[in-house]
Amino acid sequence: MLTPVAGGGLLDRRLFLTRGLVFSTATAVSPLILAKSTDSQLPSWMLKPGEPFSNYGKPSLHENKTIRWAMGNSMAPGNGVSWAPLHDLEGTITPNGLHFERHHNGVPQIDPAQHQLMVHGLVSNPLIFSIENLLRYPMRSIFCFIECGGNSNAGWRNIPIQTQVGYFHGMASCSEWTGIPLHVLLEEAGIKSSATWLIAEGADAAAMNISIPLDKALDDCIVALYQNGERIRPENGYPLRLVVPGWEGVLNVKWLRRLHLISQPSMTRNETSKYTELLPSGKARQFSFIMDAKSLITNPSLGYKMAKPGLYQITGLAWSGRGKITTVEVSADGGKTWAEAELQEPVMARCFTRFRIPWQWQGDQVTIKSRATDETGYRQPERETLIKQRGTNGYFHYNAVVSWKIQADGLISHVYT
Amino acid sequence: MLTPVAGGGLLDRRLFLTRGLVFSTATAVSPLILAKSTDSQLPSWMLKPGEPFSNYGKPSLHENKTIRWAMGNSMAPGNGVSWAPLHDLEGTITPNGLHFERHHNGVPQIDPAQHQLMVHGLVSNPLIFSIENLLRYPMRSIFCFIECGGNSNAGWRNIPIQTQVGYFHGMASCSEWTGIPLHVLLEEAGIKSSATWLIAEGADAAAMNISIPLDKALDDCIVALYQNGERIRPENGYPLRLVVPGWEGVLNVKWLRRLHLISQPSMTRNETSKYTELLPSGKARQFSFIMDAKSLITNPSLGYKMAKPGLYQITGLAWSGRGKITTVEVSADGGKTWAEAELQEPVMARCFTRFRIPWQWQGDQVTIKSRATDETGYRQPERETLIKQRGTNGYFHYNAVVSWKIQADGLISHVYT
Repeated sequence: MLTPVAGGGLLDRRLFLTRGLVFSTATAVSPLILAKSTDSQLPSWMLKPGEPFSNYGKPSLHENKTIRWAMGNSMAPGNGVSWAPLHDLEGTITPNGLHFERHHNGVPQIDPAQHQLMVHGLVSNPLIFSIENLLRYPMRSIFCFIECGGNSNAGWRNIPIQTQVGYFHGMASCSEWTGIPLHVLLEEAGIKSSATWLIAEGADAAAMNISIPLDKALDDCIVALYQNGERIRPENGYPLRLVVPGWEGVLNVKWLRRLHLISQPSMTRNETSKYTELLPSGKARQFSFIMDAKSLITNPSLGYKMAKPGLYQITGLAWSGRGKITTVEVSADGGKTWAEAELQEPVMARCFTRFRIPWQWQGDQVTIKSRATDETGYRQPERETLIKQRGTNGYFHYNAVVSWKIQADGLISHVYT
Repeated sequence: MLTPVAGGGLLDRRLFLTRGLVFSTATAVSPLILAKSTDSQLPSWMLKPGEPFSNYGKPSLHENKTIRWAMGNSMAPGNGVSWAPLHDLEGTITPNGLHFERHHNGVPQIDPAQHQLMVHGLVSNPLIFSIENLLRYPMRSIFCFIECGGNSNAGWRNIPIQTQVGYFHGMASCSEWTGIPLHVLLEEAGIKSSATWLIAEGADAAAMNISIPLDKALDDCIVALYQNGERIRPENGYPLRLVVPGWEGVLNVKWLRRLHLISQPSMTRNETSKYTELLPSGKARQFSFIMDAKSLITNPSLGYKMAKPGLYQITGLAWSGRGKITTVEVSADGGKTWAEAELQEPVMARCFTRFRIPWQWQGDQVTIKSRATDETGYRQPERETLIKQRGTNGYFHYNAVVSWKIQADGLISHVYT
């Protein structure tokens, strides 16, 4: 039953559907415990009434290490990143309190009664929408990831960074966003035929802005008011955020206040000096909007310690800005052989996809890694291939295969091969 | 384009996919505003850096009315309900801080290092699992609703209750739960052939317990450690909750500490004096585990006020413990005619399903309502039909059609016809 399907002890992805597996981690119950009344040795919390109810729940105090790790820019207060702790999470949804953030000038505290969204430029009727008005519009919901174009950029360094998954790849998160299809608002203003791009601008003190092709705006973008059921939180754009499924995070403008229709990109700072990638040729990639397929093993990963040889589940996340993930392969022998992982249903386009595969760890040193393929046939590259194409000075859009070395003593480190 | 498909102004569910709709809620931008620099009249929050980052986010202070409404039993402290404010939510996910709760003796504060799960009774090897051990087991994720068997019970009253949706139907919520398939843990203990039921018991001070058929336990139940990505919160069962997809909430035992395999139900309080339904015959329904199909319009609903005649979207939630929702029909003329609503993809089994339909409100008094059909062909009954079958003394499992009367002045009330 435990016949490997690939090197290093990888087992058939359907193994856990079979019956009667024994993991042997549990303790046998002593006859003494069974003989006693089950009322004996009750934990202290069963001996007195519990805490009162709360209007808005919080995580357990015992989970107070599961936080966003905030990294500020000491030269520019209000500029920085809060990383989602992907190594502590399971499933595919990122809870709202832990969704990653990239801030340009802090978190504005916006009064929704005063906030307005203006649609102007190449339109026949420039319009201003209040939040109250927008709440009456038709909505739709999309499960999708948002990933910063600069996520995983430590991968370009010559020496593998030794941090937990979340502090390396945690500028990506996944939510159910609900809001108004962007085309409804643009069309109400009357799009002129000369319009081909729009500038989206936020109401933070940086007035963060960027150009977006009109085709994408009319396709699947939404002006989101809700994240995972409730109104969006201040750090993620309250009261309005533009959601641009599958495209780099900077386009998903928070605190959205202005949509300016234009006939060519406006060459703002965020599409010229930033969010472009210097290539070995000396030229730079520009408007590299789509986030290519990526995957990584979240457990086991750096920061975990393997307990002892035995049966384990390797699990992680995969996603692609081009559509659905079709396959995630896992290797437990450093890439010599690969086995297909199980994808958790439902697999949704432009959404985190959880993969899992059973694994018999023999207790020897191995390197585990994953690679994703999406529905366009694109396969996540090895680091060597990516660097060959793009050099090491591009900073953005790093999506190479991630490898974890597991030592015989159970310790785990990040390696490049 | 705005040709009704049913009485009261219901429009084709695909209408919002067409282009160029005008809702006319927006204000035209005056030439004065457009002529000015866009830097003029900036809101105050654009004139100074925003707030610092936080390790764990919170909702905006402007949304502090979106809370669980807690209803305690003054005769029995620790006993009560916290209602999910479904009228304030959109999409299908309930955020963790707002997931409904039903408490029997308060919220225990459990130290996960001391918590244990015992599997005993009709097994060959009684076992005790620590949380640390359980975290190594294979996991799977399920999007599913949990609904208290007593949800919507105000519907049995002779006079329609006049409260917002959440305080009437908010003992239902929907999350992505991740944990260990229950069959893996039971089989590791070795299920004896005489076992046909199990008692699940919680570690709260009520030692809440209930009997569950072994067939269901081996089918799709999970011992959940994660809710919407993060570890389950204290109020929802930290560190362990049994998830029994589609079956009444009381079976989804929180703070799970014991699984006792037995050969017949143990006739605990929660399956005899409670969670059974007295029928007109004088007999009671027992083991009425599955939550039948239900739907309700969340917007517009009681507590909203219609602004003025015009184009609107009617939206709400539908779910069924028997599988997927296949159809939700909406009526805007008190049930004379019905039109099919659009179901938000992906439609998942035993999961909240968001429905939406465009509606042209003419400004006259109308009654709107919805009815759901699931993949077994079961259709949500009218109240009259339900009462004919079950009388009015059953308390649990109320799932009749919900009707909202919209007056010409825009005010909304709950009615029975």
